[in-house]
Amino acid sequence: MTLLRSWVDSANSSETPFPLNNLPYGAYIPAGEQTPRCCVAIGDQLFDAAAAEADGLINIDGLLLAAASDWNAMMQHGPDVWAAFRARLTVILSEGSADQATAEKYLHPLAGARLAMPITVAEYTDFYAGRHHATNVGTMFRGAENALPPNWLHIPIGYNGRASSVVVSGTDIRRPWGQLKGPNDDAPRWGPSQRFDIELEMGAIVGQPSNGAITVDQADANIFGYVLLNDWSARDIQAWEYQPLGPFQAKATATSISPWIVSKTALEPFRCDTPAREIELLPHLRDTGPMLYDIPLSVTLNGKTIVQTNYNELYYSAAQQLAHHTTSGCPMRVGDLLGSGTISGPERDNRGSLLELSWGGKEPLETPSGPRSYIEDGDTLALHGAAQGDGYQIGFGDCVGTLLPALDDPFKG
Amino acid sequence: MTLLRSWVDSANSSETPFPLNNLPYGAYIPAGEQTPRCCVAIGDQLFDAAAAEADGLINIDGLLLAAASDWNAMMQHGPDVWAAFRARLTVILSEGSADQATAEKYLHPLAGARLAMPITVAEYTDFYAGRHHATNVGTMFRGAENALPPNWLHIPIGYNGRASSVVVSGTDIRRPWGQLKGPNDDAPRWGPSQRFDIELEMGAIVGQPSNGAITVDQADANIFGYVLLNDWSARDIQAWEYQPLGPFQAKATATSISPWIVSKTALEPFRCDTPAREIELLPHLRDTGPMLYDIPLSVTLNGKTIVQTNYNELYYSAAQQLAHHTTSGCPMRVGDLLGSGTISGPERDNRGSLLELSWGGKEPLETPSGPRSYIEDGDTLALHGAAQGDGYQIGFGDCVGTLLPALDDPFKG
Repeated sequence: MTLLRSWVDSANSSETPFPLNNLPYGAYIPAGEQTPRCCVAIGDQLFDAAAAEADGLINIDGLLLAAASDWNAMMQHGPDVWAAFRARLTVILSEGSADQATAEKYLHPLAGARLAMPITVAEYTDFYAGRHHATNVGTMFRGAENALPPNWLHIPIGYNGRASSVVVSGTDIRRPWGQLKGPNDDAPRWGPSQRFDIELEMGAIVGQPSNGAITVDQADANIFGYVLLNDWSARDIQAWEYQPLGPFQAKATATSISPWIVSKTALEPFRCDTPAREIELLPHLRDTGPMLYDIPLSVTLNGKTIVQTNYNELYYSAAQQLAHHTTSGCPMRVGDLLGSGTISGPERDNRGSLLELSWGGKEPLETPSGPRSYIEDGDTLALHGAAQGDGYQIGFGDCVGTLLPALDDPFKG
Repeated sequence: MTLLRSWVDSANSSETPFPLNNLPYGAYIPAGEQTPRCCVAIGDQLFDAAAAEADGLINIDGLLLAAASDWNAMMQHGPDVWAAFRARLTVILSEGSADQATAEKYLHPLAGARLAMPITVAEYTDFYAGRHHATNVGTMFRGAENALPPNWLHIPIGYNGRASSVVVSGTDIRRPWGQLKGPNDDAPRWGPSQRFDIELEMGAIVGQPSNGAITVDQADANIFGYVLLNDWSARDIQAWEYQPLGPFQAKATATSISPWIVSKTALEPFRCDTPAREIELLPHLRDTGPMLYDIPLSVTLNGKTIVQTNYNELYYSAAQQLAHHTTSGCPMRVGDLLGSGTISGPERDNRGSLLELSWGGKEPLETPSGPRSYIEDGDTLALHGAAQGDGYQIGFGDCVGTLLPALDDPFKG
């Protein structure tokens, strides 16, 4: 696959995250308006798909695919419609397109555009499928001998998160309060989290419903696309609350996603295998083909890179996670969001959380903003990701959030 | 409070769960139709609130409160509207009402009515707030010395469940498959759950949104009403998967709720205090008044009672759970469902799960259907609950499910 050329000049650069090969799905709020509109990114522009559909430039069997404030309706229609919609967009935006003159009026500069949630999240599940991350965290909490839980190599461990807390990139994050108890404290106290952290993840968007157990292949087919995902985590709240039923308030402040959903189709050239299996998986979870993706990922703290890793470091693919998610008969719905789990690599600078980078605060990370064990008020954290094609990139846009100081005690009357 | 008399004769019996004092909110699907309609129960009848509103018999500021297929729209409007709607229903259905002749045509027999989900569940959270249950389970899993986790007396422990799996009473439950590994097995295997169980709970319905930490009093004000709730649980799947991030597929097969939401107003006479505190709670979680309810609860297995307990056995009220749920800033939405946690009492026959009743299978429960460690295929489990007033009851209707045998291996091609 090489660069597909567009009459939108900026889309033909090897530097843009949004060439014609990408066409990621997003939503923007026009100036002076309140309701988001469906759009795709092309070069340094967004293309108002809602307006183009309303005017008849896009017409897929008369369906309303871009008319709502997000892409859930489009997803509902399934893979054939996803393909037809993408094919039509590709025709419209291709170099030499007969539609250029008509289509130009639907372009708006991305710079300064207000972007909104590209989907309504039905439910949010967060996995723990990065082996380096699980090993690092397990070593810190339980020692190197017991780093990986016994089930870890057999099932993609996951827990249900809170869909209401998922926000789009650019949303400020407020440092939470919580109940905290250090290992040497006699009793818990109520205070602002002091160990607030990022988790560098990818998110898979479920685009088709299921009702009963589905295979890994069916799961792959049901995934619409992928986003960058930062699962903001209060480590001190988590340490006190998470036994025996898992993380709860520690993960409920916010989870940020990139404004753009990159379709599975755009990522197709970058499919790759999961890492070698230490223990063979049970048949229903086995790999049936390359279902991870080679996507270099990074994190910046106040603009300076602190993490570099790759989506291909995960032990389980999103398809395996989704298949496991359905094993007990759990119904899945359009708009379900599956966080991959933190994606760390083997080296220190591949670690996808400050918990790991600072080894639980024992080895603060040196950054141009000063040493960091965890996030400080005012810090801006940004996730970046772009698959590298032959003369083009498939990017997600950044997934950014700035940590605001905690409010005064919300319970102080 | 004594019985409020209705012109619907069956509502004046001390035996009916649905006197005029109750007026619980439900939804039914008329014969030959597909879409549920909002209704309330009165004696042995249901009152089609949707039709009564459409015809103008109910008119609360012109709002459409019962026009949708569930009660979420009504809840959105808030407590003043809830009160006005209930007041109007009470007038219409009271003995001597001038509206009787008009209203009679909106009555339909409850017997044989197809009932549907009374709300769309936004997100589902399940707590672990019953001390007897937590102590029993902790003793079985960790020994009597470590029965209660260290955090248990300080915060209502909870985890996010799966809203897509919540079903209305009467829905059959299919025994799930899952990954299972006994303590003496070398490796996990894929098979049908052999330890499928009930959890006797109540559910609180969040009727108003919040965005940030709210007090216990505000949380109480935001609760619309309560349901019976059975959190079906695959104990063998749970045992293998739940460390370190909590229950996942073990709880995702189904959670059943009663077809009727009993309003907080109807339950008002039955408010009671939480049990004595062993350790004082931090101020933001302290009781500010009686926020539990005295509601006798029971479970039948194939029609025979196997459990008797009371909602007042819980250590934390739903208001305390909801307040805790918001501490980290977690946004709450209309239609959020909070399971109380399993409600057990001090004696064996007060235990709200078969796990406890059979002490992990070591002491099978003798029942007229034979000994039971866990649920057998074909067993019908029903939760019952009714607060006992002076000559009247406030009931929830039953929360029933029958366990169907597992399907053939869903992954066998």
